[in-house]
Amino acid sequence: MKYEIVLASGSPRRKEILTQIGASFRVQVSECDESVGDLAPDDTVLTLSKRKAYAVAKECEGPVVVIGADTVVSVEGRILGKPKNREEAAQMIGMLSGKAHEVYTGVCIVRKEMDGTRSEIRFAECSGVKVLPLSRHQIEEYTDTLEPYDKAGGYAIQGLFAPYIEGIEGDYYNIVGLPVSGIFRRMYENGIDLRSGETVYE
Amino acid sequence: MKYEIVLASGSPRRKEILTQIGASFRVQVSECDESVGDLAPDDTVLTLSKRKAYAVAKECEGPVVVIGADTVVSVEGRILGKPKNREEAAQMIGMLSGKAHEVYTGVCIVRKEMDGTRSEIRFAECSGVKVLPLSRHQIEEYTDTLEPYDKAGGYAIQGLFAPYIEGIEGDYYNIVGLPVSGIFRRMYENGIDLRSGETVYE
Repeated sequence: MKYEIVLASGSPRRKEILTQIGASFRVQVSECDESVGDLAPDDTVLTLSKRKAYAVAKECEGPVVVIGADTVVSVEGRILGKPKNREEAAQMIGMLSGKAHEVYTGVCIVRKEMDGTRSEIRFAECSGVKVLPLSRHQIEEYTDTLEPYDKAGGYAIQGLFAPYIEGIEGDYYNIVGLPVSGIFRRMYENGIDLRSGETVYE
Repeated sequence: MKYEIVLASGSPRRKEILTQIGASFRVQVSECDESVGDLAPDDTVLTLSKRKAYAVAKECEGPVVVIGADTVVSVEGRILGKPKNREEAAQMIGMLSGKAHEVYTGVCIVRKEMDGTRSEIRFAECSGVKVLPLSRHQIEEYTDTLEPYDKAGGYAIQGLFAPYIEGIEGDYYNIVGLPVSGIFRRMYENGIDLRSGETVYE
């Protein structure tokens, strides 16, 4: 038996991660309310990934597996979203400079059978990131690029910011936006191969 | 003042990392003896990165900065090189399965002035990698791909093996083969911007 794999995210980075592991999938995104109250970082990403996954799952015919994900950056107890302008980006990078922060990605995997019955796996993964101290000049140089503006926390670990990343602790792909090993393992234990969508017999 | 940046490595992965951070550089590789005696992992990569860097540096006109690098995987005190065949690849992946191992990259940065005088920065960086337990089927599936065969330890963190990487500790790019943040920081402190090759005035 084979499930269609659907990524409920328009993020090119998440798409790239699934492509890289050789997965067969398609992208489908549905509008959903992205506002949450004053929640902790893990509850924020768990809530939003669930909304994203179900918004798409309800539009899909089974058998399908829909994967929703949401990522936030948390520094000293404060959640950083996507910066709206250069000033906000510089402020965010300044907050991350010279210290460690956390990146949370929440994942909601909705499995929908042919008869419409649904089951769900949900988890939040946290990775730590240590950033070198940046000078004002280096911050300005970075916020002059296009990179910070569509990314939580105002940076991408896989891009121009890489020289300033001293090290990480945890899943690298979780920081990019999709904890692919955590997803693979949980789906596999649940009987489905993330790459092919086929059921696993071992 | 501006130094030409030369990467003394034919590895497409190292080239990609420097490209990604926006560096202007060229690749030049020289044959050199890659055999070392029975050294510890860090001494192995320090020795080989030095040979690679100097083999290229002696052929270059200054002002130039030549970057040599060498990477090994170490598991339970044993150094894993590149597997020669499917059997060796399967054996290596079997050794990595279900446990943590270390990846060492040694870097030798040779700065050669216009008058031929040279100075050097050298360091070895270690990152930890935790691998999920793989079934025999999963190991066979992986060694059936082309990926294991040109890589130390028989896997690439950025490819088809990603689903099996539970997490890392340290610099991700060090595992890919070039600890770009360590290189950037040391060169910057030494007065040169890795990306442009220009001297830094701050």
